[in-house]
This record gives sequence, structure tokens and C-alpha cells, in this order.
Amino acid sequence: MSASLLEQLIDALRVLPGVGGKSAQRMAYQLLERDRDGGRRLSAALAQAMEHVGHCAQCRDFTEGPLCAICASASRDRHQLCAVETPADRLAIEQATGYRGLYFVLQGRLSPLDGIGPRELGLERLSARLAEGEVSELIIATNPTVEGEATAHYLAQLARQAKVRPMRLAHGVPLGGELEYVDRGTLSHAFGSRSEMG
Amino acid sequence: MSASLLEQLIDALRVLPGVGGKSAQRMAYQLLERDRDGGRRLSAALAQAMEHVGHCAQCRDFTEGPLCAICASASRDRHQLCAVETPADRLAIEQATGYRGLYFVLQGRLSPLDGIGPRELGLERLSARLAEGEVSELIIATNPTVEGEATAHYLAQLARQAKVRPMRLAHGVPLGGELEYVDRGTLSHAFGSRSEMG
Ligand SMILES: [Zn+2]
Ligand SMILES: [Zn+2]
Repeated sequence: MSASLLEQLIDALRVLPGVGGKSAQRMAYQLLERDRDGGRRLSAALAQAMEHVGHCAQCRDFTEGPLCAICASASRDRHQLCAVETPADRLAIEQATGYRGLYFVLQGRLSPLDGIGPRELGLERLSARLAEGEVSELIIATNPTVEGEATAHYLAQLARQAKVRPMRLAHGVPLGGELEYVDRGTLSHAFGSRSEMG
Repeated sequence: MSASLLEQLIDALRVLPGVGGKSAQRMAYQLLERDRDGGRRLSAALAQAMEHVGHCAQCRDFTEGPLCAICASASRDRHQLCAVETPADRLAIEQATGYRGLYFVLQGRLSPLDGIGPRELGLERLSARLAEGEVSELIIATNPTVEGEATAHYLAQLARQAKVRPMRLAHGVPLGGELEYVDRGTLSHAFGSRSEMG
């Protein structure tokens, strides 16, 4: 007997991070019983995004065009580059600080056990960018977690190889915390007092 | 400026119960970066289910046809009817007990504050069913929560009006608990020692 459409939906919902069998079941019932329009809207939004959202050719952030708005802007300082783990981190820095340089969005952090290495983070592209000579400062804003720190050290090496100064956010970001949850004041202070990596 | 496809996706994901802004963001990034096939599969499963999953004309459980498999079965006892809140509760009873009667799936419980009244639970249809005279016993298996108990008392009244015996599961189901999370042994015992409602 093949799986019913309801069973297929419950199974498909489990691709979402943090959603187990019971949550998926509850989600499916809720949509079917109380919000079919919401379910249809989610279906369409998923289809559109999976098909048409790509990566910015320069910074790897998500974008629908060839370049994201920040990389395409003529008013950003091209000598500063800030590496972040996620688009949410980029947004947090953008909103909390007066930073006017460019970004590089890793879309993750080095995590060998999960099969995420330099290749998955697009680090060849970052190296090539640093080698072009326009960037003088790489601000490494990965999270202050074990994997984030390991990633930071790897990025610092890439920077030094290209004769670019590797900078790290100042202490102030709580250890073990996630950057995107830090309050604006702390993040702004940490960003302002960044120091060269030893 | 109109919302980007990514923003639309994050917004659409919030229709899922228990999913707030940060979770929706994390889900969207995860699908876009690591599992576009999963995202496409979810989109298709949602579209199919929202369009083609309906309610059984007799018991209100979800089904793709006019009748669910249990209502369509010739081998079930038509004198017993068991009212449950959700399809998950029906499945739990089906798997834990030897019950061979039919079900009525409320798809919720009386909750005036959420706008869920007798009409939303299909109780006119239940009354009509009880009035037909074939059912002699209504086993009320709503959850032992405040709202579940209120629903049980309402159903018991409907049963008495139709000269049908209203039965409630025996003590054994923990107070304040959710039926679908009860272990099989407890549920089976409680089902077996159900008693007439006073
Ligand atoms: Zn960009
Ligand atoms: Zn049915």
C-alpha cells in the first residue's frame, strides 16, 4: 500500500530543522484543518524560493539577481571585507553598526563531521578575492563557538597568505553565544573595538 | 520595495504552529543552502495535500476518498462509536486496543476563546448519526484536559438526548496529559475499563 497524501506531507515536513514526527503530524493537521490558504501560500513560496533564489556571485548571500544589493551598491567601501556565517549575522551587523564595507557570507562554518569543509564555504572564492589586492582588511565575524573559532583561524591564515590584515571582533560578544542573538549595543561595541588576530 | 522571495518564504513558514521568526529564518536558510530537493518535495506535498485531502463523510477523519478505510470497512461493529479529538488519537487507540467499532473525529475540542464551537467540531452530524438509532454506545475519548473534559460533557448530553449510552475512558490516563503521548499499556487498560458517564 502506498503512502497517503497525508503521510507524504508529514514525512516531507520532517526536512525542516528541529521538526520531528510528532511536530510534523501536528503541523499537517493544523494546516489541513484550520489554514489551507496558509498551506497553499507556503507551498508556492517554497517552490518560488527553491527555484529562483540563488547566491550573490561576489559574497554568497542569498539573492534573486546576479549580485545582492550591498555588493551592487556604489557607496560601499571595497577595502573592507567582513566574513559572517549566515545572512542573519550580516543583517545583525548591518543593523547594529555603522559598517560601510562589504561582506562575505560563508553560509555555515567549518564542521568536518557534518561534511562542511573549505569547499562548502566557498573559501576558494574568498582566497581569489583577497588575492586581487583591493581588500586590505578582513573582519572575521564568525560566532565565538568552538567551530566558529576554528573557522576564524582558518580564515586568518587565508588573509595572511594574501597579505591582508585579519581582524576579529573585540571581546564583548559572550563566549558560546550566537552572534545573531546578541543585543545591538554589545554587538556595536564589539564591532568597533575589533583587533588584529595574533 | 516589495518583499524578496526569501522574505516571503520566511513569512510563509510562520503559518506552521510553533514556528516563530527566528525558526522560520533558520528553516529557510537550511533548505536553500543544504536541501533544495527537500524543499521542493515539501512544496509538492503541501500542494497535493491542501488540494486533495478531504474529510471522511462519516467520521470527519482526513481521507483522499469519500470515506476513510475504517468507515468503508465491512468488518467493523456499527453499534459502537468512539469520539476522539484528532486523527492521531484515533491512530493511538487503533494501535493500542482491540476496539472494532467506528470513530468520530472531532478535529479539535470545544474552545470558545479560539472560536471553536459545536459547529466547528461537526456536532450536528454527530447528533444526526446518534439519532439514526444504529449506535448504542458513544465512547468519549477526548483528552483529560479542561477543554477535553468540557467537550466530553457536551458530547455526553448529545448522547443522552439520543438515548445512547455515553461512556468515558477509565481512570489511568494521567490528568492534564495528552492522549496521543500515553503509553500503549495504560491506554489499552483505560480503554478496556471505560465506565458510563454519571
Ligand atoms: Zn553580495
Ligand atoms: Zn471515516
